[in-house]
Amino acid sequence: MPRSGAEARSRLKQAALELYQERGFDRTTTAEIAARAGVNERTFFRHFPDKREVLFDGEADLCAALTQEIADAPDGLQPLGVLLCAFRKAGRVLEDNRPFAEPRMAVIARTPVLRERDLAKGAALTEAVAEALRLRHVPDRLADLAARTGWATFHHAAQAWIADSARSLDTHVLQAFDDLHTLSEPVLPAQEQPES
Amino acid sequence: MPRSGAEARSRLKQAALELYQERGFDRTTTAEIAARAGVNERTFFRHFPDKREVLFDGEADLCAALTQEIADAPDGLQPLGVLLCAFRKAGRVLEDNRPFAEPRMAVIARTPVLRERDLAKGAALTEAVAEALRLRHVPDRLADLAARTGWATFHHAAQAWIADSARSLDTHVLQAFDDLHTLSEPVLPAQEQPES
Repeated sequence: MPRSGAEARSRLKQAALELYQERGFDRTTTAEIAARAGVNERTFFRHFPDKREVLFDGEADLCAALTQEIADAPDGLQPLGVLLCAFRKAGRVLEDNRPFAEPRMAVIARTPVLRERDLAKGAALTEAVAEALRLRHVPDRLADLAARTGWATFHHAAQAWIADSARSLDTHVLQAFDDLHTLSEPVLPAQEQPES
Repeated sequence: MPRSGAEARSRLKQAALELYQERGFDRTTTAEIAARAGVNERTFFRHFPDKREVLFDGEADLCAALTQEIADAPDGLQPLGVLLCAFRKAGRVLEDNRPFAEPRMAVIARTPVLRERDLAKGAALTEAVAEALRLRHVPDRLADLAARTGWATFHHAAQAWIADSARSLDTHVLQAFDDLHTLSEPVLPAQEQPES
């Protein structure tokens, strides 16, 4: 039996991930997760509201870390530069935690209900990131756009990292933000500039 | 009673949207939607699998239109330029359909289960857009990144249009892609270029 609440929580997460990999999310029950973790099912529900949430335990920490890193980023950076700083730091946590992070992302990618939850978490995180940019006095509209496209870029980089583990997540993040710059070279013919 | 299947379908969509606005999505039943549309509940389920899907009827058409417009875009455009062309054309359909599109987006924004469905549809659409770019010989990695960030930019523009209806959706789309260009000015110090 695990001795502490934190240890039980960590074992539940590991047990859930293993079972989702072995037999799929849909065919795994909370009772089975608890059994593999060496706790009873009541303990599972003391830590997690359902078997989806067990894979999203780090999201609140990630959100808090990102908003703090946005606040702490050096002055004088463009909004996407601020986000690049913040995502690189957040990426280190993922990289340190790769043995869990990589199979987790793979399970999510192939399980529709987990993908839905992941997308909802991503949308909430995008809003928190936009708000953190506004606190740096980025204008409302640009803050929203930077948060959405910056998050999309980070998500792209994380997927690329899972597919190509020979390079670090940090390398993929730098590459993705550099590619975004290349992709965003002027696309509007001069006569089609929007009214200002 | 509506005479044709197409007319019943259209009335069901209108009835559902009205009821979701009046009393909220959660407090509306499929029987009530059917009654307001002047059909029976069996007819509802002949057209839609559930009361969420009734608001996403146009997604397959939108996806088909977008992929076709990507294929048809002029040669020599950057990937985001191709997407700007395609989103502007798709935007016209939304604009023509504003009396339905605007309250639909407002209902989705305030209903978590509808937002989840909307995000899942957006993710599927992003994949279709990436595939359409690959068919134009855009390299795999850039196609994925352009699709994700282009879709994020279009989504941002559509939300801005709902909040500020004094300007057309097309103006918001042009503005958003122009802003993305501004946001993406170099953010990497020269010494931090990724390895190639």
